[in-house]
Parts: sequence; C-alpha cells; structure tokens
Amino acid sequence: MDSEPLVQLVEHLQATCLDRGLTVATAESCTGGLVAKLITDIEGSSGYFRAGIVSYANDAKLRLLGVPDDLLAAHGAVSAQVARSMALGALERTGADLAVAVTGVSGPSGGSPAKPVGLTYVAVADATGVDVRRFVWSGDRAANRESSARAAIELMLERVATADASGSAG
Amino acid sequence: MDSEPLVQLVEHLQATCLDRGLTVATAESCTGGLVAKLITDIEGSSGYFRAGIVSYANDAKLRLLGVPDDLLAAHGAVSAQVARSMALGALERTGADLAVAVTGVSGPSGGSPAKPVGLTYVAVADATGVDVRRFVWSGDRAANRESSARAAIELMLERVATADASGSAG
Repeated sequence: MDSEPLVQLVEHLQATCLDRGLTVATAESCTGGLVAKLITDIEGSSGYFRAGIVSYANDAKLRLLGVPDDLLAAHGAVSAQVARSMALGALERTGADLAVAVTGVSGPSGGSPAKPVGLTYVAVADATGVDVRRFVWSGDRAANRESSARAAIELMLERVATADASGSAG
Repeated sequence: MDSEPLVQLVEHLQATCLDRGLTVATAESCTGGLVAKLITDIEGSSGYFRAGIVSYANDAKLRLLGVPDDLLAAHGAVSAQVARSMALGALERTGADLAVAVTGVSGPSGGSPAKPVGLTYVAVADATGVDVRRFVWSGDRAANRESSARAAIELMLERVATADASGSAG
C-alpha cells in the first residue's frame, strides 16, 4: 500500500482542524499508537493534537478511558460498544473537541469465527454524538494496522469537514 | 539510519519482559506514539505491553499523567523534572511494572538557545526508582524522533536486564 496518500490525508486533517480551531485526541487498541504517530509525524501537529491513549490491555481501557468492565465482559474488547465507549472516554478525559477510537484484531493470532483477524471498529465522537463503523481487513498484521489507522484518519476528516460551526465549537 | 537493529531491540525487550513476567507502559511527548507503535508492531506484545499515553499538549501531561502545573511552569515541558514526573505518572496510572517517558524538541521549530532542537530527556521508572538521561540529537524531525524512540527502548532494556527479581516484582 502506498503511504503517500495517508500522509496527505493527515496533512489535510491538520489543515482543516487548524483552520477551524478544533483539537483532537486518539484512543487506540489494535493500532497501538500508530494513529498518534502518523498525526505527530507532521510539523505543526501540536497546534491541534492534544493527546493519545493506547489502551492495549483491557485493564487500561478501564483505567485510562473509563470503559466499564461489564461492557468489556458482555461484548469483548473488539466491539462497536467498546469502540464507542473508548471514543467518549477519550473525549472526556482529554478535553479535545474530537476523539477517534480504534479496536480490532490485527492478527496473526487472536481471531475467532465470530471475530476474525481483520475485524476492526472505528468510532468518532464529538459534542454532537458518536459514529461507529465496522471493517474487516484481509491483510497481514502491518497492513491491517495501517488500514485501521487510515480509516481513523478518514473518519475524523469526514467529521471535521461536515461539522457545523455551532456543533464543533461545543 | 537502519531500522533493523531497532526492531531487534524491541524483540529483545519483548522476550526479556515475557521471560521475567514484567509489564511496561509508555508516556510520550515528542515521539507522539512512536515508541508504543514500535512495541506493538510485534506480534505477542500484548503479553507485556499494558498501555501508552501520548501527552502531547501540556494540559494532557497534567490530566493524563498528573504532571504538576508548577513543575511545567518552573522547568518547561522539555526537562529532566518533567520526564521523571511523566514516567512516575505512567507507572502509577497504568499499574505497569516499568514505565518509560520521552520529552524533547523534535524540530524543526520549537528550539531555543537553552533548549535546542534535538534536546531530549528519557526517563525510566520502576518500583526501585527513576533514571533520567539527557540527549541532544542532530537530525531532522523524523531522525530525532527515531533516535529518541531508540533511546527509550534501550533504557527499558537496560533496566529490565539489570533489575533484580525482588525489585522488579514490586
């Protein structure tokens, strides 16, 4: 996969957020810091990127993002419900205007019939609400992580591009 | 710079931590998630990597790691004192056995005569105490970030390799 378009997406996200005065935060499980790394690769990212939380262990999802134990027990870490809770937790704990969360099975191990390798949920939250999307990637660990990171950047970009001023300023 | 040795260092860290039953956490400012990303690039990292916190904004260092405002005001975000506080905060908030913290001026902007581009502090904390080291890199933004990440991995490896069982089990 060519990484050039991903860099351009991140540059576009940065330009849009700086233009609109929006701050962002990340909450990552399977991508393990890759989304934050891609954002901060770019000079000037400190103007809009506030913080990232890599909640790799389930315990960290509770401690650092406030994801309830019973939600994790009922749906598993790789679920729409946990992605949503991670994004809302990041929004609240960082004070950013927008937060993205990623949780998935990067592989090569950890898959199951119900939750195969490549299954990934990405959630985006701001003051207007939370969206969650489901993906199933078919690459290796590195490719799945990059696909998940790309989806996270794209969903943030979509949200900041369509947010109206009153909603995004909340 | 060849990235192969860095991957090998991370693999060595993983093998050592798994062997000794130690968990680790990261607290990153200038590296922006790169250390967590490098750790989680490797399959099996969930066996020892608990969580990472990317406290990019000063406000995030306070909110997510408990770095006191007056410490930031007195010494600045890029200082031995703040690196130490970030590492101790990560240790406490994640419950990991070992935490590493990185804060520096990656560049190209943000430097000053007292704190030039490339100045970086890396702290490693466990139950036995905290070590802080000072570096001044001379590369571009990407190279400085990679050098800082490498130093973080090396210092963790040094600590886990020399920790005695009673200390590291605390």
